[in-house]
Amino acid sequence: MAKFTVTPWEVTGNIDYDEIQRKFGTTPIDDTLIQRITKYGDPHFMLRRGIFYSHRDLNWILDRYDAGKKFVLYTGRGPSGGTHLGHIMPWMFAKWIQDTFDVSMYFQMTDDEKFLFKDLTLHDIRNTAYENALDFIGLGFDPEKTKIILNTECVKTLYPLALKVAKKVTFSTAKAVFGFENSANIGQIFYTSMQAAPAFLASETEGKEIPCLIPCGIDQDPHFRVARDVATGLGYPKPCMIYCKMFPGLNGEDKMSSSDENITIYTVDTPKIVKKKVGRAFTGGCVSVDEQRHKGGNPNVCAVFKYNYCMFEHDDCKLEELSNRCKNGEILCGECKAILTQKINAFLEKHQAKREEAREVVDSMTFDGFKW
Amino acid sequence: MAKFTVTPWEVTGNIDYDEIQRKFGTTPIDDTLIQRITKYGDPHFMLRRGIFYSHRDLNWILDRYDAGKKFVLYTGRGPSGGTHLGHIMPWMFAKWIQDTFDVSMYFQMTDDEKFLFKDLTLHDIRNTAYENALDFIGLGFDPEKTKIILNTECVKTLYPLALKVAKKVTFSTAKAVFGFENSANIGQIFYTSMQAAPAFLASETEGKEIPCLIPCGIDQDPHFRVARDVATGLGYPKPCMIYCKMFPGLNGEDKMSSSDENITIYTVDTPKIVKKKVGRAFTGGCVSVDEQRHKGGNPNVCAVFKYNYCMFEHDDCKLEELSNRCKNGEILCGECKAILTQKINAFLEKHQAKREEAREVVDSMTFDGFKW
Repeated sequence: MAKFTVTPWEVTGNIDYDEIQRKFGTTPIDDTLIQRITKYGDPHFMLRRGIFYSHRDLNWILDRYDAGKKFVLYTGRGPSGGTHLGHIMPWMFAKWIQDTFDVSMYFQMTDDEKFLFKDLTLHDIRNTAYENALDFIGLGFDPEKTKIILNTECVKTLYPLALKVAKKVTFSTAKAVFGFENSANIGQIFYTSMQAAPAFLASETEGKEIPCLIPCGIDQDPHFRVARDVATGLGYPKPCMIYCKMFPGLNGEDKMSSSDENITIYTVDTPKIVKKKVGRAFTGGCVSVDEQRHKGGNPNVCAVFKYNYCMFEHDDCKLEELSNRCKNGEILCGECKAILTQKINAFLEKHQAKREEAREVVDSMTFDGFKW
Repeated sequence: MAKFTVTPWEVTGNIDYDEIQRKFGTTPIDDTLIQRITKYGDPHFMLRRGIFYSHRDLNWILDRYDAGKKFVLYTGRGPSGGTHLGHIMPWMFAKWIQDTFDVSMYFQMTDDEKFLFKDLTLHDIRNTAYENALDFIGLGFDPEKTKIILNTECVKTLYPLALKVAKKVTFSTAKAVFGFENSANIGQIFYTSMQAAPAFLASETEGKEIPCLIPCGIDQDPHFRVARDVATGLGYPKPCMIYCKMFPGLNGEDKMSSSDENITIYTVDTPKIVKKKVGRAFTGGCVSVDEQRHKGGNPNVCAVFKYNYCMFEHDDCKLEELSNRCKNGEILCGECKAILTQKINAFLEKHQAKREEAREVVDSMTFDGFKW
């Protein structure tokens, strides 16, 4: 029995990422593949550390790239709440792909999905989407090569593609893939077609085969399994995937959750709030200082260490040193928390400035006649 | 056991319209209601003859009208083939409502529906939709007060409304109302939301309650039952309905079908084709001339008589005279067919000229930024 759940709408429990990979049928990113990527640039630490750990057809898309065929990137955001570090992590990686391969990016904001699955109004979701877009663009995506797709606003472009997908997906399939009951609303059932659409957009627009690479959390795989299943029949290349693990919560759980503010660091959090949240983080420390000095801590279960691992310590040597010092009892949780707080606040200070600067950029971006 | 089927996608067998009315729970249009309508203008012959025979909340919408609240009209067309007389009939009636009550009309062309339910391309469906639009506008709808909504092109306006509807409709409901199996595609399941949307469009756009009256075939009731069920919860008035029976085929069956060209008269048919088709029509005549002179014909089962009844003989006295002459064996089928052929061809000659003139009008019409 699985003690965890990973679907596009629910990620709970302690996730066995190998089992998920086996269950979904995705391919591990191994050393050979990482070695191959070295050709294009220094492999991102999220690749080296197995945070982006699984894929579908990455070799194929690199073969095409080597043959001179550029791909497009596609990722997205379900704008149900403020951006937190769990969103920032894969976006940083996506930005690295954009820079390394000099490719375009479709960024889909699924306001329709959130309306259908959450108790939110389209109006509120739209405001949230704008805030999320500031974070995305604030990370430095090339505005000339990045298109923001707000589904309800850009639906004229997406809908004909979504119809083509929908025509090839039965309720049986949607039920099997997403676990829908008969009580699911008919918008939820249709929705995956809208998420598939941008994967085929470049090929449709250009009238020729343009491969698409989707970096995202592995919880989104069900959507893209559906998209891949119908692709060939529609005359589009199957979208290729590069999947990351979930960004951990400060409670040490596998996924940072928007619904629990205390274990989640938002991009707009103040230094004081960050200090408070990190201060309460779950660590691998012992009950007493003496015990920890003697026995050492356990970085494997420590949220503070995971944050360094996933995002705040890019240098592998320094990360290992931190791990060793913890295990040897040379550094205590309080000190570690203070350092992480400093790192997060330094990051957020810069990011908050950049997301403010992004306002002008986001306001000027257009797609399908849509402008914020 | 019902020996007929009436759903938005299938109308077969000899329809018991009273049973359909009972099953769907719609209200008969009785003499009192027709009397009430007399106040606004001479009741259309399709009302007098029980062709438009059933309704939902027509008294309510007239109450509002009497209190100075105008309604909007909404009808539509699934553009899967050329326009035939079966489409023209209810549109003539809709035009009469527009003129009589001086109201606006939304005309929805459901290219998405036809794509999802038929083996057709969006490209071909769009071309058909344009041809259908010529027929609609050619009937004389006021271009200032009529909006043509081609779903894939006007989806930006429809989609947020469709999402609101979809959120309130479960698969169970869709299954119960439309008879979907698990093999239905997820676009088909969602589609009813798109057909509901225009019913709420005026209220949404104006930001206040605008009643909506939908004249259409009773086969469309399942869609509007769904729309009515969700309306109040969404803060919109329930759409009101006025339903007609199906236009008969030349084979005497209850519905003219696009799929059998021989029993169907298209608006672009030549006089020669019409003559041929009517010549082969099923009548209530006897085997021999002698027998018919003696026993008389049966207009009740005769396609030729039905065509006069539904569309080509507006004068009740002349219609009765025709019926009597048939029953008395005073007129034979050949003569009747020749007269009907003449009437149809006279109508089509004028209509074909008007649909050509409509080209300029249709080309100049816009909705949601869409222009053909």
